[in-house]
Amino acid sequence: MRKKIVVLGSTGSIGQQTLEVIRKYSNEFEVVGLSGWENITSLKEQINSFKPKIAVVKNEYIARNLKKEINNSDNIKIFWGTSGLSRIATLEEADIIVVAITGIASLIPTFEAVKRGKKIALSSKEAMVVAGELLVKEAKLRNAKILPIDSEHSAILQCLKNEQKDCVEKIILTASGGALYNFTENALKDVSIEDALNHPTWKMGKKVTIDSATLMNKGLEVIEAKWFFNIPASKIEIVIHPQSYVHSMVQFIDGTILAQIGEHDMKIPIQYALFYPNRIGNNFSRLELTKIGQLTFKKPYFNKFPCIKLAYQALELGGTMPAVLNGANEIAVNAFLNNQIGFQAIPLIIQNTMREHKPKYNLDINDILDADYWAREKALDFCLKEK
Amino acid sequence: MRKKIVVLGSTGSIGQQTLEVIRKYSNEFEVVGLSGWENITSLKEQINSFKPKIAVVKNEYIARNLKKEINNSDNIKIFWGTSGLSRIATLEEADIIVVAITGIASLIPTFEAVKRGKKIALSSKEAMVVAGELLVKEAKLRNAKILPIDSEHSAILQCLKNEQKDCVEKIILTASGGALYNFTENALKDVSIEDALNHPTWKMGKKVTIDSATLMNKGLEVIEAKWFFNIPASKIEIVIHPQSYVHSMVQFIDGTILAQIGEHDMKIPIQYALFYPNRIGNNFSRLELTKIGQLTFKKPYFNKFPCIKLAYQALELGGTMPAVLNGANEIAVNAFLNNQIGFQAIPLIIQNTMREHKPKYNLDINDILDADYWAREKALDFCLKEK
Repeated sequence: MRKKIVVLGSTGSIGQQTLEVIRKYSNEFEVVGLSGWENITSLKEQINSFKPKIAVVKNEYIARNLKKEINNSDNIKIFWGTSGLSRIATLEEADIIVVAITGIASLIPTFEAVKRGKKIALSSKEAMVVAGELLVKEAKLRNAKILPIDSEHSAILQCLKNEQKDCVEKIILTASGGALYNFTENALKDVSIEDALNHPTWKMGKKVTIDSATLMNKGLEVIEAKWFFNIPASKIEIVIHPQSYVHSMVQFIDGTILAQIGEHDMKIPIQYALFYPNRIGNNFSRLELTKIGQLTFKKPYFNKFPCIKLAYQALELGGTMPAVLNGANEIAVNAFLNNQIGFQAIPLIIQNTMREHKPKYNLDINDILDADYWAREKALDFCLKEK
Repeated sequence: MRKKIVVLGSTGSIGQQTLEVIRKYSNEFEVVGLSGWENITSLKEQINSFKPKIAVVKNEYIARNLKKEINNSDNIKIFWGTSGLSRIATLEEADIIVVAITGIASLIPTFEAVKRGKKIALSSKEAMVVAGELLVKEAKLRNAKILPIDSEHSAILQCLKNEQKDCVEKIILTASGGALYNFTENALKDVSIEDALNHPTWKMGKKVTIDSATLMNKGLEVIEAKWFFNIPASKIEIVIHPQSYVHSMVQFIDGTILAQIGEHDMKIPIQYALFYPNRIGNNFSRLELTKIGQLTFKKPYFNKFPCIKLAYQALELGGTMPAVLNGANEIAVNAFLNNQIGFQAIPLIIQNTMREHKPKYNLDINDILDADYWAREKALDFCLKEK
């Protein structure tokens, strides 16, 4: 029987690539739910092609219009809003929930899917960053499985496969270094939006690309890695690897390092998560190490890119602090992209916000949402002061 | 209960390092047999330190002398010759037989150990090269396990661990390139013994170092890889990686490459084989990729180093041909080291010997010994003609 899949964020880059993979293996998978928010043209095509039972958009108005436009002989239901996302994330018949929504919006549907014991292929960083402890605890309780769709954590998962947990000495997360790695500290003062968006290897959305330039991206991944693999922050290291072919590594207690290497192709981790624990053949382009010639590795500049340190701090403080880090970062990056603050103000705003936060512990989901809300308000204040 | 270990070739480099590892884990292992051939000073120390039940040397004369010199209150038996090696390789109580003898002499004791269903940690290349088919068949029948003590095959074993066999797209054996990789074809004509022994990364015996310079080493490893991992030669690729930190890689059918990376330290694969399938902590020095800075990869020059092609040919022809390749190579390398032939005559002599051989199939152990004998005689003839 085909596995039934829901794709949240199906019109985004990861969502589209997920559907590409699913289309190639249509004997294995059946799409039962899609969410596309505002990109209705793309969602309409996906609905006509994959015939899900439910689709979700941003609001009721868009839902009604979309319903008129699709070929709806199959009586596809169009839900809307956060409740709509939760609706398809918990669809009784769904086996796999792919979560590829950007931002904190991924939290509630991920949490709901976990509570139903689903297998979740998680692309959205935020859910694990802000609520990793809660998600992992709940997943254990409900027998849910959370798998990463993300080249770094997929790499780690593959290196760890069937190795004993207590054999891990450290996880080595690789980072491209982003667009600004070789800028001097002085040059970073006057960085333009275009400079910061000029990522050397991966093509991604604007928010993530700026996170790459500040290295916050890697900081968030450290937090994710902790929860995905139950590894303390002290055992998670970041190494700059500008070519981004080594997607990450694990060093074991015997000194051995295993590395996962491959093309810059998100379809590889997507496929790996969907078929996990099996590997399935494909015709994606193959990496030729002899063509690339060299792989280089450097230590990250922690002082030039303070976001990494802030992420380690937030993880160490725990509780609601990672949610505050994440919320403040979203606001600060947005302000930078709107030309409201300079590049170097991003870590400052996050740091100031974190300083004013008293973390709460023993969290439920509302504590996390409250911390996120608080952090955004606070960070906005700091942004206005910067202006 | 402690695992009982026999170390064949205990006074050689791998043998000594094996005893170092065993000494560190003396709660886990007990040495019950040692063979040291001619290096009696070293063997004597090992006997006094590890108190095996049996030791083996080259001949009866050495055995009698050694017996007088050791503190023999424990009544340690000293056997000699090939029959002595077979005696300890089949020791009833032994759990693990480490085979670290150089040359074809490793074949009989390895075969005998396999027939007794032992766990064999195999460092000697020759046994698997000349008799891989036979050893693997017999191992299956007798429930013996043959594990590599060799950085490349240990790396592959680790990358393949618990992956499904049919998921392998190719094995990528890394090669340092040896001492002469960057010599022009012309310069190779006048290579001195010193040039050829000047290995860039590993310190090894003379024979193996010359095999590195001709790249025959890698050719032999292709043959070993076929038998260790049941992979056709067409799926085994060689990549030049001068730093020798990536010990080998496996590419899977989804395009993913897993690589095993580490220091130049044979104790790592030794330990891995002894404890397999478990990883055990150690305090060996750790590789710092950020200190190394870069890892480079190039395609091998097949024309400049024809030994690789000869090895692939021998594997393809099968039967007794790999034994002929190996025997002719031993003679040719020896002749080069004795200043009897030039560097480029090595592959010529092997090629000429292979050309005159009609391979035999459905082998027993005597067919292999006969082919080896034949190849040595023939190759010697060709060496004399070269002179």
